[in-house]
This record gives sequence, structure tokens and C-alpha cells, in this order.
Amino acid sequence: MKLPLLVPLLLAATAAFAQKAAPAENLVQYARPIIGTQKMGHTYPGATVPFGMVQLSPDTDTLLYAKDGKYNPDIYRYCAGYQYDDPTIVGFSHTHFSGTGHSDLGDFLLMPTTGPLQLNPGTAQKPESGFRSRFSHQNEVAEPAYYKVRLDDHNIGVELTATNRVGMHQYTFPQSDQAHVILDLMAGIYNYEDKNTWTYVRVVNDSLITGYRQTNGWARTRTLYFAMAFSKPFKSYGFRNFSKKQVYRGFWGKFDQTHNFPEMAGEQLRAYFDFNTREGEKIKVKLALSPVSQDGAVANMQAELPGWNFEQTRAQSQALWQQELSKVTIQSPKKDDKINFYTALYHTFLGPTTYQDADGQYRGLDQNNHRAEGFTNYTTFSLWDTYRALHPLFNLVQPRRNADMIQSMLAHYGQSPEHMLPVWSHHANENWCMIGYHSVSVIADAVLKGNAPFDANKALDACVATARHDSYDGLGYYRSLGYVPEDKNSSSVSKTLEYAYDDWCIAQMAQKLNRPDIYQEFSKRAENYKNVYDARIGFMRPKLSDGTFRREFDVLSTNNQGYIEGNSWNYSLYVPQDPKALILLMGGPKRFTEHLDSLFTMHLPDKFFAETEDITRDGIIGNYVHGNEPAHHAAYLYNWTDQPWKTQQRVRMILPKMYRPTPDGLGGNDDCGQMSAWYVFSALGFYPVAPGSPEYALGSPAVHGAVMTLENGKTFRITVKNQSDKNVYVKEARLNGQKLTRPFLQHQDIVQGGELVFVMSGKP
Amino acid sequence: MKLPLLVPLLLAATAAFAQKAAPAENLVQYARPIIGTQKMGHTYPGATVPFGMVQLSPDTDTLLYAKDGKYNPDIYRYCAGYQYDDPTIVGFSHTHFSGTGHSDLGDFLLMPTTGPLQLNPGTAQKPESGFRSRFSHQNEVAEPAYYKVRLDDHNIGVELTATNRVGMHQYTFPQSDQAHVILDLMAGIYNYEDKNTWTYVRVVNDSLITGYRQTNGWARTRTLYFAMAFSKPFKSYGFRNFSKKQVYRGFWGKFDQTHNFPEMAGEQLRAYFDFNTREGEKIKVKLALSPVSQDGAVANMQAELPGWNFEQTRAQSQALWQQELSKVTIQSPKKDDKINFYTALYHTFLGPTTYQDADGQYRGLDQNNHRAEGFTNYTTFSLWDTYRALHPLFNLVQPRRNADMIQSMLAHYGQSPEHMLPVWSHHANENWCMIGYHSVSVIADAVLKGNAPFDANKALDACVATARHDSYDGLGYYRSLGYVPEDKNSSSVSKTLEYAYDDWCIAQMAQKLNRPDIYQEFSKRAENYKNVYDARIGFMRPKLSDGTFRREFDVLSTNNQGYIEGNSWNYSLYVPQDPKALILLMGGPKRFTEHLDSLFTMHLPDKFFAETEDITRDGIIGNYVHGNEPAHHAAYLYNWTDQPWKTQQRVRMILPKMYRPTPDGLGGNDDCGQMSAWYVFSALGFYPVAPGSPEYALGSPAVHGAVMTLENGKTFRITVKNQSDKNVYVKEARLNGQKLTRPFLQHQDIVQGGELVFVMSGKP
Repeated sequence: MKLPLLVPLLLAATAAFAQKAAPAENLVQYARPIIGTQKMGHTYPGATVPFGMVQLSPDTDTLLYAKDGKYNPDIYRYCAGYQYDDPTIVGFSHTHFSGTGHSDLGDFLLMPTTGPLQLNPGTAQKPESGFRSRFSHQNEVAEPAYYKVRLDDHNIGVELTATNRVGMHQYTFPQSDQAHVILDLMAGIYNYEDKNTWTYVRVVNDSLITGYRQTNGWARTRTLYFAMAFSKPFKSYGFRNFSKKQVYRGFWGKFDQTHNFPEMAGEQLRAYFDFNTREGEKIKVKLALSPVSQDGAVANMQAELPGWNFEQTRAQSQALWQQELSKVTIQSPKKDDKINFYTALYHTFLGPTTYQDADGQYRGLDQNNHRAEGFTNYTTFSLWDTYRALHPLFNLVQPRRNADMIQSMLAHYGQSPEHMLPVWSHHANENWCMIGYHSVSVIADAVLKGNAPFDANKALDACVATARHDSYDGLGYYRSLGYVPEDKNSSSVSKTLEYAYDDWCIAQMAQKLNRPDIYQEFSKRAENYKNVYDARIGFMRPKLSDGTFRREFDVLSTNNQGYIEGNSWNYSLYVPQDPKALILLMGGPKRFTEHLDSLFTMHLPDKFFAETEDITRDGIIGNYVHGNEPAHHAAYLYNWTDQPWKTQQRVRMILPKMYRPTPDGLGGNDDCGQMSAWYVFSALGFYPVAPGSPEYALGSPAVHGAVMTLENGKTFRITVKNQSDKNVYVKEARLNGQKLTRPFLQHQDIVQGGELVFVMSGKP
Repeated sequence: MKLPLLVPLLLAATAAFAQKAAPAENLVQYARPIIGTQKMGHTYPGATVPFGMVQLSPDTDTLLYAKDGKYNPDIYRYCAGYQYDDPTIVGFSHTHFSGTGHSDLGDFLLMPTTGPLQLNPGTAQKPESGFRSRFSHQNEVAEPAYYKVRLDDHNIGVELTATNRVGMHQYTFPQSDQAHVILDLMAGIYNYEDKNTWTYVRVVNDSLITGYRQTNGWARTRTLYFAMAFSKPFKSYGFRNFSKKQVYRGFWGKFDQTHNFPEMAGEQLRAYFDFNTREGEKIKVKLALSPVSQDGAVANMQAELPGWNFEQTRAQSQALWQQELSKVTIQSPKKDDKINFYTALYHTFLGPTTYQDADGQYRGLDQNNHRAEGFTNYTTFSLWDTYRALHPLFNLVQPRRNADMIQSMLAHYGQSPEHMLPVWSHHANENWCMIGYHSVSVIADAVLKGNAPFDANKALDACVATARHDSYDGLGYYRSLGYVPEDKNSSSVSKTLEYAYDDWCIAQMAQKLNRPDIYQEFSKRAENYKNVYDARIGFMRPKLSDGTFRREFDVLSTNNQGYIEGNSWNYSLYVPQDPKALILLMGGPKRFTEHLDSLFTMHLPDKFFAETEDITRDGIIGNYVHGNEPAHHAAYLYNWTDQPWKTQQRVRMILPKMYRPTPDGLGGNDDCGQMSAWYVFSALGFYPVAPGSPEYALGSPAVHGAVMTLENGKTFRITVKNQSDKNVYVKEARLNGQKLTRPFLQHQDIVQGGELVFVMSGKP
């Protein structure tokens, strides 16, 4: 990786586009999209704007390219399409998830090539066998909203940038009478030969193409529309249909429908567009997306990016990043700290992503088109991950967007034939991934923190309806027995614990909205975690429908032990809504502290590493799994014991271990920003242990100072005295001059503006 | 077949809904949808309103039910889904073509059943092996807008009716706690196992379902949406996915998604809805269609058929038929003549069909949604057939609709990336079936006859652009050589002859619109028929690109002789634009008359019958093929010789032979009404030999009198004196008292109203 080069236009553009005067320091330079692209981070290096619909990024391989289209065991590495260690690039597609542990998307892959037309991607081992190309990180630049690489096999320079709904490509060709741009509609992430249900392409004129791709993947019934414009007319075009499926060919004798015929359709299409190019000639391509229609995509391009000025587009989009990153500025003598911090902040602002046309229309969960009235519709809700720290972070620095995200979730509820809030939804589909109904946490957190510019009582009703859906994932048993019985429904302990937390969120909301019946019902449900605690062994443990605990049980294993993506050591700590009660349940502060200490220090036998999903070995400290979410609050639980200094010490240990300024710098999937949100909070010195509560637990700041600029115009300043790598302990914390007597901070303390001073020390 | 029973409500409803006072006589009783359902007529017996979007009709078998999903050689019989000789009914689907020679549609098949749930249709040989049922014509009633049958295997009475966009089912069940209604989304006409690209079903509540079906068939990229309402809530429901294709199942563990789960999607679905029924209990189902969206289908149902009164709906829809059929009333002492005539008129008013929602929105050829402004959008343009007599008939009795059909064709042109008018289009797709560009004939005929409430010059431009599309079907050769060379493009003679006629149409339009350059260019092209006439043998003959006629040539064969769906004997007469010149070309009146006489009287060796497509042996008289279109004008060509009496004699011979009041009464495919339009014109005593000319050639009326009630308020009366089966010769014809000196009639003579008197005689 070269260091990113900043375009001269940037600062000017920043000044021009930032809402307030831009800070002297350019923050975009510190955000490094390449971080997390190696190993398990599952981030993508490509170009996007904050919360943008387009994520235009290189794909180095996807399942489609596995021989014979069989399931590719390696596919998991390609959740974001790009793996840093790969030697070749297959092309540049327009939609990517950031940090997920399952995947989809990868729509509309474009690849510029030279030489004889090749319509097969070829293999990484033999790139010359197809249109893919070798590339080198020496020739690669990845910045927010800008990506650059050289395709060695085609001698083509590629630059990418994006607006919200439009991806812009700038290809610098050599002299050639065999220059091509391939539009691969077969390509996709987590692709199967038969994942496409249909694709359609229409050549409107010699430089405008529209169409769509329909897939049956993680999103079961997904359609995405596009409009693609070339800066230069193509000289000829055509396609090949690779589908084995018999396609009715109409009366093809009337035309050669594979060459220069303006309508293409089929299950597995690759189209191509031919050019003659001069040495160094730049051909630009704009590809606009729409969830609604081809017309919508054309209109989005017209509204957002009518022109062809690549540098200006890049500058404007990077200015948007400068504007967002400026919401939390930090001080640190170490550049790496700034790289870690602003890259984390960058990752938290990637999604949920915009999911509506410029005119407000979007495709609903019911597969009808709707218009978002009074809010911006967002999609990609990885809620099991993001309710923990990402949405709470948004309630501080993106409150308007967070409220719109909640309105989007409520629209989903209105369109859901199950009458449920989203569990894991993207692109007008519910994929039901993971467990719980954590939408209620996101909604409760906003309501409790006073960020609810929507009908909070209607929202509460949606939460209650969701939490009473007996046919959902063991919920009927949970409601009748007080726990999910392992013999009836797997991962029963994880579900019981998370349902109980979600129920507490509903209770908090009901209390604030003065709905006593709901408050009582759900306060009671919130205590169900007690029903799966086995006092004899001091761990949460799977219980059977007959009321007895399951005999065979391994507290270290995550396989079939009543848990999902975490073992009992980690998950037994999952009562964020009431750590005090948990501590009592687990035998009081002393025993509880011992459990926590052991978690961080014990030796986890090798065989269990293989089981831990989504993370590299670096993602584990002792038996504490930071690379996955269930224990993200664990380090902060010492605050409820008499040893809060251990929270400070653990946090400062975790931060540098789990977040490094390198491509392999993330210890696990970034999970749509949750891992990064943990970093942002923890580096600032506090963390939302229980979203739905206005209280933050204090940790130990890693920054030397910070300023949060809030949408209400207030600023919250964090001043850190005697900061150093050794001085990880907080000797004293003062809020607006007042010494804090408890290691906690209230949401109001922050949003009304003020100053928090940490005085650090090398001794507990 | 029982005689149709007329509901008491009908006459009242007629009076209530007919625009003018209804005639005393009920005409609906004479229209028999069952005619043409046996053998090659390819008509359907089900319920529809004039030009309605819904054609709700029983399907007795379709390709899907062929074992192993291989191509079923027998499929051709099932273009309309129903064959009279079949012993079983598979179900009732909502879209059907009338009389086509290739097919598609058959969407949303519903089947009510009792007993154990069966989700396979089973076979005709073993109906009990599936959900299909035996039925008997004794228990079958087929009327315009009403169909009734008893399903013997399920002991269920079925009645069907329809409004424009909504099909209504009334099922009379026995007592049963195992009553079901199956919604078969796999079913379709001309279906392949893999014809579906995707299907989607959403259970909105306990009695409303919405969804869509996408297919890749004759229409390459077709989506049709539906909304289905039950008059009684179902007690349970579910589906099975028969697709071999791997479908991503999301996290199915969360629910049993096959049973009582409100979202279903996949390639090959059959859904079912369960009921308990009392003896004789009626359950009604309404299924609304939309080409635009599920919401559109719901809105269409609300707009057209909000209630549940089956009898009233039937009465209102039959009143619409009474209203349309009343536009041409005839006198005849023979009921069979009335059955033949009004059934023919019924068949001409089935299509083109409405293709827009109640709010005017429709899916365009470009797969975007559009709104029809100032016209009703129609689809299903079988133009190679219907330009001949159907659209000319519409210019007389459906001028408003015909103008809207042309506006629909112009909208298609505007959305066509090839910038061409429709060739054979349906459901937002061009299927390119058959040859020529006969849209121009339909447009020219309307313009020349003064029925052009649209921008005629823009329409002319569309015609010219279409006729200059060099890459289309040999047109480039035709333009450079003056004919299509057989060695470059097959069926070259048929194409040359039909292009020449179409070009003449364009010339006529250009002349009327005072566009002299276009007039000259296309008048010259209109003479290209001469380039394929071989004077040495007196037949049109395939010519090669070197200018020589192809040596091997058989004037009786239709296989690979330079023709399509006709042999040289028939096709050599195809110069409708200038019979005079054709007669000279073919050696003068004497030789020409001999050719015509031989055509009707010669013996066609058996081997050639096998070749003649689309028709039964009854469809051929001598070597004259009436069961297909190319020679439909032939009998009238005697009018340009000195023996017009032979036209009169041939026509009176053809009428009773080719049109009979029985299920097998049609001698060939009705071809979307063209065969029937020939009957209507000929029975009235005249025929449009060359659409694009305002002139009709006189024949010999089969009626004893007729009245045409025109939209301009005028009436045109046809009085026939001395009419009898023997008196087939016209001794004298008087128009408004004036004796006609030539056997021709002008369009203006009819539309300005008046009376035509035929005086018949037994002698030429």
C-alpha cells in the first residue's frame, strides 16, 4: 500500500461542501479502507460515500468462479468480494456489505480489458485464461470515496469514485483497437450458478444502457436496477448467455440477437462493449442504481451525477467524508492512533445504506414500491451486531440518520406479513439471520435518549407485537416456560438471554411512555435469564422442556451447547440490563470478578479455536472472544464490582491488540460497523453496556483528547491528562469540573455539551 | 353441451348497461365460446368480457404435465389450454390467447378439490393420481362471460365469470373438512419445467393473497401480478416448492416456512388453502390481474369488483357482450346462421386485450412502468393475421378501440430499442413471430379511412423507420436487391410479397398526408412483388442473390420453397394492393381465372396435407387453404376479372364449409379473430381485400339482412332479397337506391350510413 495521495481539490471542496467551516486538519487521510480486507475483517477497499447506496469495490474472487458451480468452502473469505492476499482482480462491482459473516450483493461487475475478447473470468492461477487481471498493492490506492489500481494484464489504469447512488469509473487505456468493457451480470458475492433468477439489459443508445438483476440469495427475492452511461460511444457490443437453462429464443432468425442487438435477457449473461482507444485515453463509466426501476436509475444519475468530471466528483465525495469524520476529532501524538480511530469511524459510517431513489421511492418488503414520506429509507440492518454500540453511537453523532433508520424499520414492520420488526434485513428482504428481536433495543435506545421524532407509541406497539410472535424461533416456549428449551429449539440459552434483554428494552420504553401494563409484562420477562442459570456450576446452561438442565454440557465449546457464536464462559455474562443482579446470581462480586479475570487470562485449548466463528486467533484473548459480539460488554462489567480499574486495564489491552493500522488489522468481522463502534466508544473512554439505558460505563480513553460536535450545535470535549501507554488507569474523572463519584456517564451529560476530564495514572 | 341457460337478470342488466336501448333479441345466447375448442380452432371456452385482460378458462392439459418436462409434441393442441376431447380438467387459469398457433400465458391456475391434499395434477389416464378431475360436457355450460362445469372427482360445482381485470370463481362444495383451493404457480400454457423464472406469494390476511409470476417463454421477460380474495377465510394454508434448483432458505429454523408462513417464493410453487365446508356451501374467489404491481392488482379489484355478487357480475358482463354484439345484428331464419355469425363476432371482440391498470399504468416494452395518457393500452397483436380483416372490421364497428390499439402500437414503438413497430407482441414483449411489418397496414387502414385521432405524421415516421430497418429479417437485401434472396434469408418469396404490400400501405398513407418523397420511395418498393414472379412457370418463385430463380422448386409444397404457411399456388396470388397488375403479370384475366379455378378445384395430393400448418383437412378446399391466412383474399380476386360471380359462388361455398356451429366448427386456428373476421365480412357481403384502401370488394351475403350500428350514430342497413342457399349470386346491388356498376363498395358509403340492397339469384 502506498500512502493515499490527496488531490489538491480536496481541501477547497471540503470548505465548499462541509456544513461548517472545515477543520484545519484533513481527516480523510487517516481513514484507510484497506484495513480489515485481509483475513477475517470482511471489509471492502472500494469507493463509497457515508451511508451510500453504491459501494463500488474490486472483487478478487467470488463463488461463481468455483469450478462446476458447487458450494465453495472458501466462499466465506469473500463476504466483501476482496481478499488482500489475492493476486488478481476479477472486476469492480457496485454493492458490498462491510464486515458481514454471510453475504450477498456484488451486483453489476464491470471489467475493462484489452486484446481478444474474453467472456470468462479465468482462474487466479491462470489469469490469462480469462478477463481477470493480476494487480499489485504497489499500484493500489484506497481512500474514502476513491480507489485506484493498475490492471497489469490489460495495461489499464482504473480509478473509482462514487456518489450516493452512482458509481463512477475512470479507465486509462493503452492504444488499442481491441478495448472492451465487460458487464458481468453473472458475477455476484456468495454466488451460485443458479443464484440469478433473471437479468435484463437494454441498450438505449450508443452510450446508455439500462437493466436489472434479480437474485435468489441471502435476500430471497431481490431485484436491483441500473443505468450505465459511457463517456464515449462504443463501436459495437454484444453478449453471451451462459445459462444451461433452455431459453426461449423467440424468432432469432430475424436478427443476430447476440451482436449489436439492443435487448438482452437471460439467467446468466455477460455483455461486452467494444472501443478503439488512443494511448492514455480515459473512458469514464457511470453506473447508477435503483431499487425501484430502470427509469429510477436513470433519474438518480441525472439528479446526482449528470456530468463527467471525475476529479470533482471524487473531491466532493471525499468532502462528505471530511464532514462526517469531523463529528468526532481526536488528539494523539501517534499517527497510527489517528489511523485506527478515523478508520473505525469510517467503518461505522458505511451503513445502514440508503435504499431509495432520489425521489423517495423504494422497494418495500412486500415487493411493492413505496415512497418514503418524511424520512430517508435505509437498508442492511445487521441488528444482532449493531444494536450493541453502532446505533448508540449514532444517537450521539448521527441522531437524524438513526431516527430515519428506525422509521425504515417501522416501514418494514408495516409491510411485514409476519407483523415483525426486522431481524436481519437487506434490499427489501428479511433474511432472518441470527437471533433475538434487537430492533426493539435500537428503538428503545432512541426513545430513552430522547431521539424519537416518530410516533413512539406506535413504535412500542410494533416492538410488543414482535415480542409476542409465538411462532418465531422458540418464542412461544419462552413465553410459556420462561426460557427456550434446548430440546425444542437450538441455541436456547443465547435466545433466552437475548430475549430477556430485549424485553427489558421494551419495558424501559413502556415506562417512559407510561404504558404500565406493557412495562409490567416485559419487566417480568426481562428476568427470564435467571431461568437458565445453573447455580451448581455457576454458568448459564441449556434447560430442557421438562425443567431439568441438560446433562451433557461443555462450558468452553460453542458447538451445540445451547449457544450460538459464543461459549458459556462468554455468554454467561450476557445480562447487560442488570449487571448488579447478574453478579449476585453468580455468587457475588468476588466470584464474579474471578470469572471475569479467568475469562481474560485462562488458556483456551486449541481445539476450541477451530469452533470460534468469524474470527482469527488474534480475535481471542484468553477465552475472551472480542472478534465476535456476545461479550463486547464484558470488559466493562468490572465497573459493577469494586474493581473498575480492571475495566480500564482490559480495555487498554484490547484496543491495540484488536485494532491495528494494517490490512489484517481487524481481529474479526467488522459486522457492519459494530466492531469499529466498540473501538470508537472505548477509545473515547466510555461504552453503552445496555442500550435502552441512558447510562454509559466509563473505561479508559486511548486518545489524548477529543471533541464531539453534535447536531444540536453543542460540543462535548474530552480532555485526557497524563495520557500514555502505561498510564491506562483513570485516577479521576471530572464532568464540567465536578468529580464523578461513580464510573458512569449519562447521555444527557454529553448531548447538552460540556467537558469530561480524565486524569490518567500508571497505578490502579 | 347443454344449450346455454340465460340468467333472468340478464335482460334487465342489458337494459341497465347497454349504452343505447338493448334490442329485443338477446344475442348473447347465439355466441358459443365452445366453438373452435375441438381440433385446430385453438379457442377457449372460458369467461371474458370484450377485449378483457382476464380470460378465465379451464385447462385440460399443458406441457408442464408432460412427464420429465421434455418438449411435448402434443403441446400444439393446447395453445388455448383446453381441448374438447379431453376427459379431465386440471384447473382454471386466468389468461389465454384465442386461436393462436403458438402460445404462452395460462397464469394463476386455481383448482378446488376435496379429500386428502394432492399437489400434483396427476395424469389424464389416472386423474385420481392428482388434483385434476374428470368432467362431462353434459355438465358444462360455456357462454360469453360465463362458464360452468362439475368436477366429478371432487363433487364440486364450478362457475366462472369475469370483469375486465378480475376473474370470479364460485365453487359449490360438498360437506367436507378437507376442502382445498390449489393455486398452481407452476402451471402455464406452452410451459416448460424451467419456464418460470420466479414466483412470489404473500398472504396479506386470512382471505387476501397477492403475488406475481415471472416467465421466460414466448414473451421473453414477462411478469404478471395478482391479488386473490376469498369470500371465506381459510383455516390453514401452505405450499410446496417443486424446483430442482437450490433455493436459499434463509434461516428456516426460525419458522416452518412451508405451512401457515405468509411469504412464499421460488421457481416452482404450488400453494394451497384449506377450508371446512357445509354441503352446498359456496366459496367465491376473486383474482385480479395487473401488469404493473401487486398494489395495482389490489386496486383493480377494488375498482372493478369490490363485492361478492356472482350473478350480478355475470349479468353485467354478459350485458357488455350484448352491447358489443348489438353493433351488427343480422336476420336469418336459421338459428345456426345466427350461432355462426354471433360466435364469429364474439371471437373478433376477444382481443387485442386490455393491458393497463384501472389507473392507466402499464408495463412497457422497455420493462418500465408507463401511464397511458389519452388512450387505453392494449396488448396481444397477432398482426400477420389480424391486419387482414380484423382491424378493418374494427375501423367499422370498433373505431375508438382500433385507434387506441394503434396508440398502443405507437407506444411500443417509442419504447422499442430497435425503433420498430410491433411484429407480434404481447404482455410487454416482442416475440417476433411470423413475417412482415404489418403494423403499417393497420395504421394506414385507419388513416386512409379517416379513423386517426392521433398524430398521423408521427405514425407515418414510425412506419418508415420500421420499413427501413436493414438488419430486420432480410430487409436490407430487399431494399438493395428489390427482393429477399432465398439463399440469404428463408421464406424469401413470402417476405418479398408481404413487404411489397406493406410498402404500398406506407405509400398510401404518405400520399394522404402529402409526404411526396415517402410516397415515391414506397410506391416503388410496392412493386417489388414483380421481382419474384417467374413468367416462364406463371408462379412467384424464390430468387437467389445472383438474380437467378432457384432451380429446385415445388409449387405445391410449403416446405422450404421460399414460403411460410402457404404454398406458391396460394401465395402467388398475394398482391392485394394491385390485383389488376397481378392479373396482367400472370398472363391476363383468362389465365388468371384458370389459376383461381384450379386453386379451388384441383386435387391436392395427400402428402401435402401433412405440411399445411395450423389447419385440419377441412381447412382446405382443393388446394385453397382457408385454414391459414395468406389466401384469405383469394376468393375475392374474381372481382377484378370478368367473372365476379365466381367470387360470390366461392364465398358461399367457403362459409358453410369452414364455419360450423359445433366444437370442431373452425377449419383452422382462429388466429386472434382473423378467421372469424373473414366470416363476419363475407357473411355481410363484402371484404377488405387490401387494407389501406378504403375499398371493399363485394361478395355474396349469407345473411338475410343486417344492420350495422356505428359509433358515429349512423346505421348501415344491408337488405338481401331472394336470399336462399341456392341463390348465391348477386343479380344486382343498390346503394341508397343507386345501382352499383362495379362490385365494390367504399368505406365512406358505410360510415355515412345508408342502405345496401342485394338482389340474389340462382343464376350467375
